Amino acid sequence: MLRAASTDVPVLVRDTDTDTDTDTGLGCPCMSGSSIEVETPALVIDAGAFAANLERGRREFTRGGLRYRAHAKAHKSAVIARKQIEHGAVGVCCAKLGEAEALARKGISDMLITTPVIGMTKVRRLVDLQRLARVAAVVDEAQNAKEIASTAESAGVEVDLLVEVDVGQNRCGVRSPDAALQLTRVIEASTGTRFLGLQGYQGRSQLVPDFRERQAQAMASADRLRAVVDRLSEAGIVPEILTGGGTGTSAIDVEIGRLRELQPGSYIFMDTTYAGIEWDLDCNPPPFHPALSVAATVISRPSSTCVIVDAGLKALSSDSGIPRVKGTDAARYSFAGDEHGTVDYDHGQAPSIGAQLELVPSHCDTTVNLFDEFVVVRAGAIEEVWSIDARGRMH
Amino acid sequence: MLRAASTDVPVLVRDTDTDTDTDTGLGCPCMSGSSIEVETPALVIDAGAFAANLERGRREFTRGGLRYRAHAKAHKSAVIARKQIEHGAVGVCCAKLGEAEALARKGISDMLITTPVIGMTKVRRLVDLQRLARVAAVVDEAQNAKEIASTAESAGVEVDLLVEVDVGQNRCGVRSPDAALQLTRVIEASTGTRFLGLQGYQGRSQLVPDFRERQAQAMASADRLRAVVDRLSEAGIVPEILTGGGTGTSAIDVEIGRLRELQPGSYIFMDTTYAGIEWDLDCNPPPFHPALSVAATVISRPSSTCVIVDAGLKALSSDSGIPRVKGTDAARYSFAGDEHGTVDYDHGQAPSIGAQLELVPSHCDTTVNLFDEFVVVRAGAIEEVWSIDARGRMH
Repeated sequence: MLRAASTDVPVLVRDTDTDTDTDTGLGCPCMSGSSIEVETPALVIDAGAFAANLERGRREFTRGGLRYRAHAKAHKSAVIARKQIEHGAVGVCCAKLGEAEALARKGISDMLITTPVIGMTKVRRLVDLQRLARVAAVVDEAQNAKEIASTAESAGVEVDLLVEVDVGQNRCGVRSPDAALQLTRVIEASTGTRFLGLQGYQGRSQLVPDFRERQAQAMASADRLRAVVDRLSEAGIVPEILTGGGTGTSAIDVEIGRLRELQPGSYIFMDTTYAGIEWDLDCNPPPFHPALSVAATVISRPSSTCVIVDAGLKALSSDSGIPRVKGTDAARYSFAGDEHGTVDYDHGQAPSIGAQLELVPSHCDTTVNLFDEFVVVRAGAIEEVWSIDARGRMH
Repeated sequence: MLRAASTDVPVLVRDTDTDTDTDTGLGCPCMSGSSIEVETPALVIDAGAFAANLERGRREFTRGGLRYRAHAKAHKSAVIARKQIEHGAVGVCCAKLGEAEALARKGISDMLITTPVIGMTKVRRLVDLQRLARVAAVVDEAQNAKEIASTAESAGVEVDLLVEVDVGQNRCGVRSPDAALQLTRVIEASTGTRFLGLQGYQGRSQLVPDFRERQAQAMASADRLRAVVDRLSEAGIVPEILTGGGTGTSAIDVEIGRLRELQPGSYIFMDTTYAGIEWDLDCNPPPFHPALSVAATVISRPSSTCVIVDAGLKALSSDSGIPRVKGTDAARYSFAGDEHGTVDYDHGQAPSIGAQLELVPSHCDTTVNLFDEFVVVRAGAIEEVWSIDARGRMH
């Protein structure tokens, strides 16, 4: 159960059955009687865990002189992007142009869009956006690079481009060193575009639980990127930036030393899936803490061992499995529809109607995308509310 | 491929490889050069299929003098709610108080919240909302009913309440006829609340593919509701409204004749899961048409049989399986991350970069919740854009 940090802050909603802390009656932020009032389902950041992740990220991702550009797809929030930059990130990545636009409007000035920006309308938006911020993009085919180049030339700006290289994900990216070289030359041929470097991201490796297997995959990706670097080098071209990697392979990528810029996103919140990977050869857990939860309220109590809560598929993503009930191993959440969840307790300990509990998502990125704001809680009290500026900004 | 309906409306984006219709190069709305510009991923309503569903719903759900109150959780849109009311619905249902608030602000005046409204803050909001609209709610325990009653009394209003009865879903609802009677008496004891009737909803039955099995479940639910009606009757209480059912059991519920008000939601859009159920003993498909799709753009083309599109887990819900590629059986979508999808084609027919295609969701409700607006398309041209007013209104 969360408690108020000081007498200035109202005590949070409690298990209605009891006035003392219990494992099952975890509270959630609700400043009743205050000008701000947060109700469930609410997306809650644990300020302490979040701050620890920020600081640990700075240390982890800058080892050996490496740079990092935190991936904002995880949080979609300018406030958090700014904090990451204050903690040593050289800027942020965005998955979509719309994300970059939303963050640029809130003052984020250095971004990389990690997915190709396709179609003339989007290309024009990308070029227009350069007036607000420096926004680099990735390309994997010539036509797109040429469209960006000519649009940028007409507008009198220069767009930084990276060639995306498929390093094993079978998603976007050029498939060979020769294709990368050809595309690089297209970029270099125009005054509207500047060749900044290469992106080689292997998302499938990030969540491989076994450390050695993840390490082997990261090394294979690094080899594929190296082959492209070598080919460019033969042609006298040296990429300024080699970017890729994520939270899961970050420690490995630091050791390999191939990438010059990491793109970690999930470290800031973690989720139950990430928490399950072996971080190193000693099978330690990741050095980051679960910092995100969805606060939910008990709305019905079918029995002494079962309650229904007000958070279902529209409040918690299900693509990576079911959420965990925070603070107890004796309760199990299951989805019970779009707006309902069932929580089963091992013994007759189910909280009463009106009690609140917290659920830890199995996948933070897709859960964050369901909400408009983060409620930041420290010691049981609301500290701040942060806007999720790019929520739903898919295009 | 979608085409412009008239010369006033720009021709939509096409497969960049060809200027003729193809199965694989399905277009999507994009009014370039216009003041409105819709880009992918976009949530598209097929105006013709939607209108047919509206009209068919009116016929299906009012047979034998039955009333229907369409469930707005499926669309969260005041425009659609109004159209349903114009097509004979007596009002709409909402899953959450926040949905009802959003729709009331847009002029929807008769609603039922089908999930208990728990906690004093929400109870106050429910009572306040009565000034804007008639908003009934369900209850399944006395404390909640009393809180609503006393708050309503203080405000000088009367809130219509229905007792929710568990008719087999094991979710919310009282579990016995005696419990229902007891709760009904609590409601009747206060001038702040009026007993309107019973809700008995069995969500699990709705998508049972086998007709006979679905029928058996609907009959079992009707029996459970009848037992409560009988108990109330013995006590001299006649519920005005018996509400429940959904799209899947609607035809069966009409035959059983137990419910007096149906709550169909999914009929308005349908999805691939619903489309797979046997509608009747003759194994006919449902009489409603798929009316919703997510338009996506090809952003990379790894091979002649595979493309990457710009719609992943943040644009298409995955809780009920993978989406279907509209208009062809020779292509299969798979999720390739939060912002990416892979579409594999049987033969060397994959569309080129920039081409657009449409994906039919496996679950409309949770997909709608990811977007802020519907793009309504008729004969390939954008007809209107409708706001999803209650998107993300979870509390």
